[in-house]
Amino acid sequence: MSTIADVVRVAQEAKRASAELALLSTQAKRKALLLMAKGLLKDTSSIKRANARDIKDAEAKGFSGALIDRLRLTDSRIKDMAQSLKAITSLKDPVGSIGEWRKRPNGLLIGKMRVSIGVVGIIYESRPNVTSDSVGLCLMSGNALILRGGSEAINSNLAIYSSLIKSAKASGIPKGAIGFIKSTDRRAVGVLLKQRDLVDLIIPRGGESLIKMVAETSRIPVIKHYKGVCHTYVDKEADLDMAEEISFNAKVQRPGVCNAMETLLVHKKVAKEFLPSVAKRLRDAQVEMRGCARTRKILKGIKAATNKDWPEEYLDLILSVKVVDSIDDAIAHIACFGSQHSDAIITEDRRAADKFLRSVDSAAVYINASTRFTDGGQFGMGAELGISTDRLHARGPMGLVELTTYKYVVYGDGQIRK
Amino acid sequence: MSTIADVVRVAQEAKRASAELALLSTQAKRKALLLMAKGLLKDTSSIKRANARDIKDAEAKGFSGALIDRLRLTDSRIKDMAQSLKAITSLKDPVGSIGEWRKRPNGLLIGKMRVSIGVVGIIYESRPNVTSDSVGLCLMSGNALILRGGSEAINSNLAIYSSLIKSAKASGIPKGAIGFIKSTDRRAVGVLLKQRDLVDLIIPRGGESLIKMVAETSRIPVIKHYKGVCHTYVDKEADLDMAEEISFNAKVQRPGVCNAMETLLVHKKVAKEFLPSVAKRLRDAQVEMRGCARTRKILKGIKAATNKDWPEEYLDLILSVKVVDSIDDAIAHIACFGSQHSDAIITEDRRAADKFLRSVDSAAVYINASTRFTDGGQFGMGAELGISTDRLHARGPMGLVELTTYKYVVYGDGQIRK
Repeated sequence: MSTIADVVRVAQEAKRASAELALLSTQAKRKALLLMAKGLLKDTSSIKRANARDIKDAEAKGFSGALIDRLRLTDSRIKDMAQSLKAITSLKDPVGSIGEWRKRPNGLLIGKMRVSIGVVGIIYESRPNVTSDSVGLCLMSGNALILRGGSEAINSNLAIYSSLIKSAKASGIPKGAIGFIKSTDRRAVGVLLKQRDLVDLIIPRGGESLIKMVAETSRIPVIKHYKGVCHTYVDKEADLDMAEEISFNAKVQRPGVCNAMETLLVHKKVAKEFLPSVAKRLRDAQVEMRGCARTRKILKGIKAATNKDWPEEYLDLILSVKVVDSIDDAIAHIACFGSQHSDAIITEDRRAADKFLRSVDSAAVYINASTRFTDGGQFGMGAELGISTDRLHARGPMGLVELTTYKYVVYGDGQIRK
Repeated sequence: MSTIADVVRVAQEAKRASAELALLSTQAKRKALLLMAKGLLKDTSSIKRANARDIKDAEAKGFSGALIDRLRLTDSRIKDMAQSLKAITSLKDPVGSIGEWRKRPNGLLIGKMRVSIGVVGIIYESRPNVTSDSVGLCLMSGNALILRGGSEAINSNLAIYSSLIKSAKASGIPKGAIGFIKSTDRRAVGVLLKQRDLVDLIIPRGGESLIKMVAETSRIPVIKHYKGVCHTYVDKEADLDMAEEISFNAKVQRPGVCNAMETLLVHKKVAKEFLPSVAKRLRDAQVEMRGCARTRKILKGIKAATNKDWPEEYLDLILSVKVVDSIDDAIAHIACFGSQHSDAIITEDRRAADKFLRSVDSAAVYINASTRFTDGGQFGMGAELGISTDRLHARGPMGLVELTTYKYVVYGDGQIRK
């Protein structure tokens, strides 16, 4: 009962703060973020002490090493958090900018003004740096926010939040603009997802099961991605050296992230030449390959890929490989098994490239580059609050602009409708 | 049971058709719409016969005259439907256009390509012209659609659909791209609203209760507006002649639509001069005024406005009037009682105008013009599929561009992530 009242109160305060926050000057927002960055550095030891409690609990519960690593805060990770806040202050503030002007025959001047979305709820797991990244991006885009981190990181998140809120107060950020749900009761999330009159957008960040739960429960619009099953298609007109570099990079450079390649598709005309060479490099980098029947005729001894492999996000040094008859087959495979995240074609044939670009329905479609570039920083958007594979509002990296919406502004000098 | 299977089948066919439709050339889409326009004119008598059955049923059920008028199809209304389809063919096709190019330091060239949303479900009441308008706008923006009209118009809608589908077939529109749910069973809507894997967007069009039901039931994103409680605020620095013309226009020119003014807010400094003059014109036009206490001291004998009046969408010749102490009070009133649709300030004071523009959180905010202009045609967007007062994806009139989304297209020449 008190959990429910608590969540509603936090949401009401965020809603109340949002109107004032939406009108805050760029300068005031930058000042607040810089103060927060300083504060985090000053509070490093208390944040680390809180984090140590989470780590101890996680170890006692027998959590995996990977999870504990994601949870752990070191001096350098806290410095990175502060650095991210600073970096956000150097980005262009989209709020209040007016574009797409049009003048109507009756003299009306119509433009679109970028405005804040309102109140954003962030539901996340494990990595405590999401706390400060979310605060930085939401405040800079004029959005109030409500944080709801996982119970495994509650002490760390609370310590980071306490540090940030001190700086927020000192720099005049409206009270309630940064909401934090302290209860780790699971029902709190359910209550938050029902506050349609108070919360405008939910962004879940974490594993697929968390995101599924949020998407299925929420009565508020959700922007999300479930997973990244990214493909590289090596066309019959590919520069095979380039194809090898790009495939290797997309799989190996950082296999545990959503824009890493999970499936390599190769046109049958180049498979015999291309596969042995790239396979050698991949094998040297400890990549396990799983192939279709035709692949296994060329790469003897590798495991067979099953229908379970094609839709799988390995997030690991594993790669499924398929030989296809045509670019159409590659496009059909991606439509069937892809996750609408990031997919690439390697080709020197402009018409094939155009066809792939038009037909593949993913948030980012590449010609002759590694899918690893789908990232707010790499796209030149500065920071990002996750990547969207949804179809509405925002697709791909969600930066400051994607955290805003627009309204029409209409300048007249007495126009009436005839 | 058969209703459920039927709805799912229609949605599956639309989904299947959507990929091909999304890639159709502008020319092919224009050709199809022109053929449909011709077909409607040719089928006028059969459409009118079907409509007569709906009118007869409605009369037998004792429906109101206004409802029967919305339902009725005449030669000229069918001509208008055909004309709307033709008008859509003259609009710019947004699908496939690439904008917002950026070049990254590593040479990657990144742009945003406009792409179709996919499958759009339209749930609507009464006016049968929504059938052909929806088909025209969805097809031109490359979206498959599923139509679900009200039972009161089922014969008319079916006749229009049958005419359109003949032309669609003859012009090579993929089979299933225009879905129609024939069952008038209410459960059909519930089933449609659950097809999250098949349908990308729901647009409800009709009364507030229909829209509320859809928004509360849907597991698919919904874009909508509940109602239009539009305000005109006459500032202390207003040109009072202009204020009178605009207020009169916004209330009287067409009171039954969502962008008509429902509440007039007047700054106390100009109330005594402004109100008597505008009230005389409004009274002559049969407008019933309901005022706050201060208004009633100036306009003797008018009814008192209650707290029920301020959030009310009259859609009629009724106007609530309030005297406010300041522009801040006007903004606060709009924030409290408005519907985030369209609101105007009348002022010669540029700072007041800017403040209103920034602070009022509506889909369209006006300076010195009538709110009646919030409309796809008036905004220069050609046709529209309703008006959104939501915060995400699209706000205001929903034209062709608003019926698309985007994907990132990335051109490289071998870039890999370091």
